[in-house]
Amino acid sequence: MIIKINEVGTRDGLQSISTFIPTAVKTLWLDEEHACGVREIEVCSFVPPKLIPQFSDATDVVEHAKRLSGLTVSALVPNLKGAQRALELGVDKINYVLSVSESHNLANVRRTTKESVADFERIVALVSEHQGKKPKVVAGLSTALGCTIEGKVTHEAVRTLALLMLKAGADEMILADTVGYADPKAVKQLFQQVKSDLGPIPITAHFHDTRALGLANVCAALEAGIDSFDASLAGLGGCPYAPGASGNIATEDLVFMLESMGLNTGIDLTKLIKARQTICQALGDHPYHGTIAKAGLPIGFELSQSQSQSQSQSPH
Amino acid sequence: MIIKINEVGTRDGLQSISTFIPTAVKTLWLDEEHACGVREIEVCSFVPPKLIPQFSDATDVVEHAKRLSGLTVSALVPNLKGAQRALELGVDKINYVLSVSESHNLANVRRTTKESVADFERIVALVSEHQGKKPKVVAGLSTALGCTIEGKVTHEAVRTLALLMLKAGADEMILADTVGYADPKAVKQLFQQVKSDLGPIPITAHFHDTRALGLANVCAALEAGIDSFDASLAGLGGCPYAPGASGNIATEDLVFMLESMGLNTGIDLTKLIKARQTICQALGDHPYHGTIAKAGLPIGFELSQSQSQSQSQSPH
Repeated sequence: MIIKINEVGTRDGLQSISTFIPTAVKTLWLDEEHACGVREIEVCSFVPPKLIPQFSDATDVVEHAKRLSGLTVSALVPNLKGAQRALELGVDKINYVLSVSESHNLANVRRTTKESVADFERIVALVSEHQGKKPKVVAGLSTALGCTIEGKVTHEAVRTLALLMLKAGADEMILADTVGYADPKAVKQLFQQVKSDLGPIPITAHFHDTRALGLANVCAALEAGIDSFDASLAGLGGCPYAPGASGNIATEDLVFMLESMGLNTGIDLTKLIKARQTICQALGDHPYHGTIAKAGLPIGFELSQSQSQSQSQSPH
Repeated sequence: MIIKINEVGTRDGLQSISTFIPTAVKTLWLDEEHACGVREIEVCSFVPPKLIPQFSDATDVVEHAKRLSGLTVSALVPNLKGAQRALELGVDKINYVLSVSESHNLANVRRTTKESVADFERIVALVSEHQGKKPKVVAGLSTALGCTIEGKVTHEAVRTLALLMLKAGADEMILADTVGYADPKAVKQLFQQVKSDLGPIPITAHFHDTRALGLANVCAALEAGIDSFDASLAGLGGCPYAPGASGNIATEDLVFMLESMGLNTGIDLTKLIKARQTICQALGDHPYHGTIAKAGLPIGFELSQSQSQSQSQSPH
């Protein structure tokens, strides 16, 4: 079975770093992970540079990413204006974000959820009228498993919003545990329900490891039939208000778990662990997480079959 | 559903600390966790004090633990001599340890697995002839999911040894991922098989979080019907040869996950997080792990029903 892993550290991770990371380091990150076999990367966020100066070089980063063969280049987009920029630059996927919980949506994108849905409809229309290559339009549902402002978020609220976004024209869906509130039981149930509601459109799970349950939640989502996961190299990210709390699940730990289970990620883990070192060195001193890079691979560890085959075919 | 959590940090954690921890700190640890609702603790190891001086005060620690009402006092025992001491002191459970992989057994207890089984038979005989209170005799199978010397350990080898130990008179079984090699797929399969082989005798899962999969492995074991787990407060433990690698899964993170899933551990998590702080302060500067104590409980987090009921009945 093939599992898709999408690197989001270049967006979700970098947005947690207040000092500007040079464009060359960002493109090095893209190059390194691409060389390991990662085939989808959320390369930036099209937010106003005034709000997050980290992404003021989004144009250069996207241009670079587009040159990496076979890479699906996605970008986070909070509104119509961001979608226009993403469309002009020719990204492959527009990851539009809105929160299931109203208060979080108001805090994050300064409008009601209803207004966010209406804006999404305008983005879908914009894309459908676009003459060039049409990107996929993805609905990213934040706080799908809990909210730091409202607490519990009901599965019913998530299902209702997911159906609204499907009706509005979403090609794909991301359900995000933005604040690390999910548990395996809730995850399995929610993803089963939404998958059954939405039918065949691709659904990605986006977990944070804030409360140590990130990889357990991945297992629960796998059981619900989910085969696409967001992750961040070295778990870069995390909340500035919770020192020591990690961000997204670490890409390399996720690859290790899946490959251990005989699932094929298409990613060369040994190479990825080396890439982590290169990238972290280039990024400088930030809070990194992740375990496998420290502990090392088990003796006799084997990558999943298709991955080992592709490795044995490589000329070394 | 009720899940049993056994604190093993007082044995597995402390044995990783080379400086002697005062007896008063050890008994404080026992008192604190007992007050949180923990009802089984592996309080020490009956190894020769020359080998591990940390447990030279085992007698005092056991005597103290025995005074805590409703607590099942267990102790690790590597051989007949240790079992004799444990029996004299009146522990409730003798956790006899041997490794599935021959090389690890030779390195750890300096004899072949076959010799370890024979020694276990002598311990069972000793206990059955004992006039006083008879402790339960537990077979702890180390390296059940992989070995740092031999690499892969087959499920077949684990099943064969588990059946041998059952035949030899084990009242209970512990399957341990001693070196953090397990993955959720292997865990689910192995525990299903062994559970089916052994019938109704209690089986405990003992996971290390060395490679970040500890809690995911717990979920997999839950699916195989396992309802008893070892854990170490603050994840104390870990291998001296892998700096930064954590030890056992952290008790407080395990309780958080299970209670989030609506499973009742009988443990007051808020109190346990405070106890962690008290105990770590008393223990001093050591590598602590665990996430929930840093990140804090989610807003609106509820303990499982029976636990909340017992809380609402308490006079505060």
